[in-house]
Amino acid sequence: MSGAALNLENGLGFTLLARDGAARRGRLVTAHGTVETPAFMPVGTVATVKGMLPEQVAATGAEILLGNTYHLMLRPGAERVARQGGLHRFMNWPRPILTDSGGFQVMSLAKLRKLDAEGVTFKSHIDGSPHRLNPERAVEIQELLDSDVAMVLDECTPFPASQEQAAASMRLSMRWAERCRAAFRDRPGYGLFGIVQGGVHPSLRRESAAALAAIGFDGYAVGGLAVGEPPETMLAVLEETVPALPAERPRYLMGVGRPQDLVESVRRGIDMFDCVLPTRSGRTGRAYTGRGELNLKNARHRDDPRPLDAACGCAVCSGYGRAYLHHLFRAGEMLGPILLTLHNLTFYQVLMRDLRAAIEAGSLETVAAGFLEAYGRGDLAELAGAP
Amino acid sequence: MSGAALNLENGLGFTLLARDGAARRGRLVTAHGTVETPAFMPVGTVATVKGMLPEQVAATGAEILLGNTYHLMLRPGAERVARQGGLHRFMNWPRPILTDSGGFQVMSLAKLRKLDAEGVTFKSHIDGSPHRLNPERAVEIQELLDSDVAMVLDECTPFPASQEQAAASMRLSMRWAERCRAAFRDRPGYGLFGIVQGGVHPSLRRESAAALAAIGFDGYAVGGLAVGEPPETMLAVLEETVPALPAERPRYLMGVGRPQDLVESVRRGIDMFDCVLPTRSGRTGRAYTGRGELNLKNARHRDDPRPLDAACGCAVCSGYGRAYLHHLFRAGEMLGPILLTLHNLTFYQVLMRDLRAAIEAGSLETVAAGFLEAYGRGDLAELAGAP
Repeated sequence: MSGAALNLENGLGFTLLARDGAARRGRLVTAHGTVETPAFMPVGTVATVKGMLPEQVAATGAEILLGNTYHLMLRPGAERVARQGGLHRFMNWPRPILTDSGGFQVMSLAKLRKLDAEGVTFKSHIDGSPHRLNPERAVEIQELLDSDVAMVLDECTPFPASQEQAAASMRLSMRWAERCRAAFRDRPGYGLFGIVQGGVHPSLRRESAAALAAIGFDGYAVGGLAVGEPPETMLAVLEETVPALPAERPRYLMGVGRPQDLVESVRRGIDMFDCVLPTRSGRTGRAYTGRGELNLKNARHRDDPRPLDAACGCAVCSGYGRAYLHHLFRAGEMLGPILLTLHNLTFYQVLMRDLRAAIEAGSLETVAAGFLEAYGRGDLAELAGAP
Repeated sequence: MSGAALNLENGLGFTLLARDGAARRGRLVTAHGTVETPAFMPVGTVATVKGMLPEQVAATGAEILLGNTYHLMLRPGAERVARQGGLHRFMNWPRPILTDSGGFQVMSLAKLRKLDAEGVTFKSHIDGSPHRLNPERAVEIQELLDSDVAMVLDECTPFPASQEQAAASMRLSMRWAERCRAAFRDRPGYGLFGIVQGGVHPSLRRESAAALAAIGFDGYAVGGLAVGEPPETMLAVLEETVPALPAERPRYLMGVGRPQDLVESVRRGIDMFDCVLPTRSGRTGRAYTGRGELNLKNARHRDDPRPLDAACGCAVCSGYGRAYLHHLFRAGEMLGPILLTLHNLTFYQVLMRDLRAAIEAGSLETVAAGFLEAYGRGDLAELAGAP
């Protein structure tokens, strides 16, 4: 789908279709297709959602992936991806892609990083090679990758941080956001999101949201959460931050989270999410079900013929029992991570689909409460009655 | 497909549809479906073809898988698989399955193995636990697994072996073959194959084939090849052995092999093959193409946009370039082994399909010569002209 065919104006389209309390049902329009929101974006760090073919990811219901600028700039390199026709073509994912700016991973993964007012210098965690990232280069890399949704370069304020530390860090990020906006080349179906920082300090969050709105972005992300603060603190910050964001643009909560976090954040008006949990947990033997999490490595599954989740219609739940999945993890077989990743991604997408339908029906509070009650209940009781 | 629905008699159906020289085009009928021969069986050692969903394996054209009795008896255990409804249901592969008898892996993988006239005692390579395998237990395990095609327990004679060593080993295997036949429970659509041994000694091979034919099996395998002897020795042994096998039953060359080995063995009258090469090579970055092998880890691929094999219609060749596959292997991503395994299995199945069509058309010699010439040519010359 080309921007011309969609007859898009510059930037990203976003239409609000329904509301239910603070929650929103929307549609994001990009150069590579549309995304129904609230949406969960699987993480495809180095141009692959680990263990998945792109068509398997699409079959789970995912409409947009996240790619990591930090990883891709180091390997295979943004210019190399551009020579291969951009990230969509390189990784055979023709649908929308959002890329982060690299700032978060520079701080969490890179070696010998040195932040200055202009940008950040660091050494690759792979081979120690020196690199430099500043607002202009972060935007350039994301354009080379052909990212539909680019993110501004920011400093993810650590937790805990004093009001003074958080303020200085946030204000640096706001200066960088302005430079990113100036460097971003407007094109139909492509957009740039700003990122609200400010730690757990409501006044700083509001200051940041106002600064970004004054610059003007295609969407607004909430950054610097899910970095160690308690879940209730995260939700409290959301409640202070979301009302300060422009209502007509999409809102993206970065790096979140657990199924219950998605439900609570949608209730508070978030439209987009990304998180490594469904893929990373799948690789370590953890499955998400409507009755909570299962650890397939646990011996209690070794003779259990039941599917992961009897209510799940995914290819894993219709084809394989827990005993088999347990066996795959015990034997260290690749198919264990593959099947659990496939199931977990489906579980996340079905949850988002159910939340979208609930917002349309005006029943979000009922659906959310029902999900959270069942999710906390566990499934051991049923085991006694298993065939 | 049930045996009743097929109205099968006891044992396996086998129909010869065409011949071309010594080569045969046949159809094997089992309790779980039919197999067009010559056929290549992907190896699903511990109830999984490594890195593949069963529907992906089926999509390559594979109609039958091989499972390894040695691995399955140790983990998860034959009785556990039986409680889960058998191997087909356990691993979600509803099509035919052939299992080996475990003898080969006991000799190559197990610790502290001790062979006697009655059977073999060994310790698991996984946890050191003690186990015993004899002809009767090997047959029982394969029945618990619900294997369509079971194999007799034999001793795989090592290479090199003197005539005396090879004779003693082969005659032990023949006594075990008789005990396996006696222990095997006849059922419609299920069968037992004997295994010819005798090292590289033609007179022993003929003696073994005659001994097995006298007992009477559903099919006849050639064992003890591809164990270190030169390829031309293997083909010479085949030429001595195949004519001594009952013409009306399927012939299976165990553990072979490279694409060129399959072509040469089909020319000499072999109907079935299994080998870890397409899957194992895929995991280590080696791809089979009509122009020979490629090592995707090699830096020469890092900016090459071409598919692995422009003539291949598989999902990998239609969706991904060599530069991307190289990147996946450099980054240690699971998708690299997955995609190369998928391509390699497709390459093997397309080769078998082409050989079957050539036998039907009476053009096997031409097709075989054309394949072998192109396969040996390599693809470096074309690289200069790549876009």
